[in-house]
Amino acid sequence: MSQIGPLKLKIMLFCGDVTAIGPGKVDLLEAIDQQGSISAAGRTMGMSYRRAWSLVDTMNRCWAEPVVRTSVGGGAKGGAKLTPFGSRLVKAYRELEGRLNEAAADGPLHDFEQDLLARPRPPAPAGRAAHEDA
Amino acid sequence: MSQIGPLKLKIMLFCGDVTAIGPGKVDLLEAIDQQGSISAAGRTMGMSYRRAWSLVDTMNRCWAEPVVRTSVGGGAKGGAKLTPFGSRLVKAYRELEGRLNEAAADGPLHDFEQDLLARPRPPAPAGRAAHEDA
Repeated sequence: MSQIGPLKLKIMLFCGDVTAIGPGKVDLLEAIDQQGSISAAGRTMGMSYRRAWSLVDTMNRCWAEPVVRTSVGGGAKGGAKLTPFGSRLVKAYRELEGRLNEAAADGPLHDFEQDLLARPRPPAPAGRAAHEDA
Repeated sequence: MSQIGPLKLKIMLFCGDVTAIGPGKVDLLEAIDQQGSISAAGRTMGMSYRRAWSLVDTMNRCWAEPVVRTSVGGGAKGGAKLTPFGSRLVKAYRELEGRLNEAAADGPLHDFEQDLLARPRPPAPAGRAAHEDA
């Protein structure tokens, strides 16, 4: 997820109904690249090994080439690293994200940011409450 | 949510932790504009009146100006229409969406679409299953 001011852009590529790459998965790939293992990467993201492994498995089954390679033996103690394909995918994702954020920052919705409140107004007490029960 | 091929872009503007405008809310505003009522708009989107009303209420409390005005009496039977501000917001959102989709269509991630499978490969039976239990 990428944010300039109150604007957030979410870029996803789908493989059928499944996200092949998106904000959470690209963060996980970067964490694996930094940590050298799926379990350590998951920990830095507050995610169980099983969950992190499942996201990696989904990505590896969504692309023509694997994005992550685990060392022989694999498992929670094994190392993991991005394949060259996985590295290129992360790079392209971040480049597109930067490009779209720039385009959005001076785009048609940009002027509306000044009309956006910092938090929602509290609900109006009388008429609104009755209305909500309708 | 906007999609060219397997790519989806989600544009959201936040008001604190709350989405002030996003794919679902902009669809609802367009439906209200077409249907002239919150309940009818909700129905076309398979959503209860209460849910549709709650989304409209959130938007109205997130922006300096209301996006939808209900006719006197309000409630499930009352009419609703976009304010001029609401109409401009929808227009700007769709314009930005179109612009970002164009930018994405020839952007850095575009080449990866050819490496994307139409659906995930089935899980490998042996090693993978053991790995998943790790």
